[in-house]
Order: sequence, then structure tokens, then C-alpha cells
Amino acid sequence: MSFSPLLEELIEALRCLPGVGPKSAQRMAFHLLQSEREAGQHLASAIQQAIANIGHCQRCRTLSETELCQLCTSTQRDPQSLCIVETPADIKVIEQTHVYRGLYFVLHGRLSPLDGIGPKQIGIPQLAQYLQDYPITELIIATNSTVEGEATAHYLAELAKEYNIKSSRLAQGVPLGGELEYLDGNTLAHAFRDREVLA
Amino acid sequence: MSFSPLLEELIEALRCLPGVGPKSAQRMAFHLLQSEREAGQHLASAIQQAIANIGHCQRCRTLSETELCQLCTSTQRDPQSLCIVETPADIKVIEQTHVYRGLYFVLHGRLSPLDGIGPKQIGIPQLAQYLQDYPITELIIATNSTVEGEATAHYLAELAKEYNIKSSRLAQGVPLGGELEYLDGNTLAHAFRDREVLA
Repeated sequence: MSFSPLLEELIEALRCLPGVGPKSAQRMAFHLLQSEREAGQHLASAIQQAIANIGHCQRCRTLSETELCQLCTSTQRDPQSLCIVETPADIKVIEQTHVYRGLYFVLHGRLSPLDGIGPKQIGIPQLAQYLQDYPITELIIATNSTVEGEATAHYLAELAKEYNIKSSRLAQGVPLGGELEYLDGNTLAHAFRDREVLA
Repeated sequence: MSFSPLLEELIEALRCLPGVGPKSAQRMAFHLLQSEREAGQHLASAIQQAIANIGHCQRCRTLSETELCQLCTSTQRDPQSLCIVETPADIKVIEQTHVYRGLYFVLHGRLSPLDGIGPKQIGIPQLAQYLQDYPITELIIATNSTVEGEATAHYLAELAKEYNIKSSRLAQGVPLGGELEYLDGNTLAHAFRDREVLA
């Protein structure tokens, strides 16, 4: 017997969050109702505000609550370098490294013909327009290192060639702190091929 | 650089959920905004509805959106048996076993004098009233098997004695599927002491 239909509905609704199964959803619902009602109210309105106001930057397609995002309008960024990523979350992790000072373009996906995702779906027309309108000299391709990410990277490199722009791809190899013993063969082979000459 | 203050606020707000750290909150926020906007809207309203409408049952103190909960008003339950639990979540797991057909009373906590939680904070006056008003013949004490839960159980057993009501405590012992090798000594000692005579 369930003791409250609204509680059941809340548990069900919480399952839309990634990584939340029936047990964690139940725990979250009880937690919100027992000791976090105020924080719960705040969470509900934060979700509503974000969904209502966050759209996409007209230029780089990342999530933004203004027509152009803070990165595209910044005067602190190198306007000649454009990094192509699959998702806005990728921008966030790259920004956290503080290693890149250029601009971004978000594909919101990757080429995947079997799923009906072609160049149009990942915003290639907008990207082509971008390359025509702005003085980009290097395209840094930072799609994921998956089969589809690699195919997309290849496609983007061809596009860069058309526009006479230099393109590069993030280095692949042994992750820092990684032990060779546990590394997959493909990564190890790649690391061998791209070995760095020290002296 | 953050690209959206509302996004940052959403990530921060998601952290009120139990077990959600900065990384998962970020993942949840991006997931909601990228592919689950409708479900996100639904989640926000489910949280608001639940918080606004779910209070406590006047009789057993569990979470309920009506004055008396569905368990207390059910005619299918044994009205002579009262099971005392620490939280509404405990009722849910007990109900899932289908082994108990009586009523419940929720303490919303456990005795913990150092934290200022005495009999009044865990609803003992209401429980005493309950025992006076209704024909309870057995009190099943299902507080957690922690130090505080045991102290609370002891207190409740004394209370039952005052009202001339039989009281019992959930059995303690080896969990099903448990291996002795990995069991803590206290549980094992308890299981020995309470061993069941087979023949």
C-alpha cells in the first residue's frame, strides 16, 4: 500500500535525473519531505528558472541565458582559435583546466548516420557560417575519443581544409597517473605511435 | 568563466539531494537542460506539489496528504498490532515485505539526549494517547539496530509495560545470504544467543 500518491509521483519524477534509480529516488523524496523542504522549494524554482531562461548562444550554440554567451562576448578570449566540442559540459571541463583561451563551438552531438544524425543536426551549416564570418585561424577538434567522435573529427578536419584553416585534434595517450598494465591496447598503441622525443 | 548564473544556481540547488556531489549535480543540470526539459518541468512541479500538500497523518505521524493516512483508515489492517518505526521510509520497506498487516507509528527520529532529542521530540505523548485511545495489544518495536535505536527500543518497552501491552523487538541475527566470515562479532554473538531450536 502506498501512503501518498503525490509522494509516489515525486519518486517517479526524480527518476528523470541521470544515475537515479528507484532506491535513490525514494531516498531523495523522503529526504526532501523530511528535512529539506525549504531547499526543495528552492530546487523546484531553480529548475523552472533554468528551463525557462536558458537557451542557446546564437553564435557558439552553448547553453546561455543571453543571446550571446559570456564566452563569445568576452574581450579576454583569443578570437582566432575555435575549439569544437560535443556538449556544453565539455566546455565546462576544458575551462576548468585554464589551458585554453580561445572560443568554442558546440555540436550538441556527433555524426551518427544510423541514428539519422547528419551534418545538419550537429550545426555544420552554422559552423561554416562562423568560419566565414570570423577570423578563425585554428580549429581545435575536441570531440570524444569514440568511434563516432573520431568520424566527426575527420569530417571537421575536411571542413577546415575547405576553408583553408589549420585544424588539430586533442592528443591521445596514457592518462596522467594511468598504469600501463591496465591500459587498453588501442590507447597504448596510439601512445607508442605518438611518442614524444625527449632528447 | 561560468557561462550562465542560472545554470550555476541550478547545479548548486541540486546538491540538496542526498548523495549528490558537485560532479553529479553538474551532470544532472546539463542532462535536464539538454535532453529532459519536459521531465524537468514535471519534476519541479512534483516537488512543489509534494511539499505543499504532504503533511503528517494525525494518528500515526507518517507522511500523508490527507488528515489520516491510507494505512490508518484502511479496514484491511489488524487494529490490535502497532509497529513503531523511526521514519516513514521504514514503513515503506516493511510494507514491501507484505509480512505485517497491523498499524504503524512514526517517531521521526530516535532518542538522543546529547542532541536534545527527548521523548517529546519523538512524539511519545502522542504515542501514549494512541495506546490509551485504541485497542492495541502488541507493540512491535522496529527502531534501527543502532545504539540510539536500541535505547529508544528499551524506552518504548518500558512504556508498553506501563500500559500493560505486550512488546516485541525485530529479531537480530545473520542476514539472509550473509557469510559468517564477514559478519561483525556483535551480530554473530547475538545470533548465537538467540539460536533457534530445530529439533
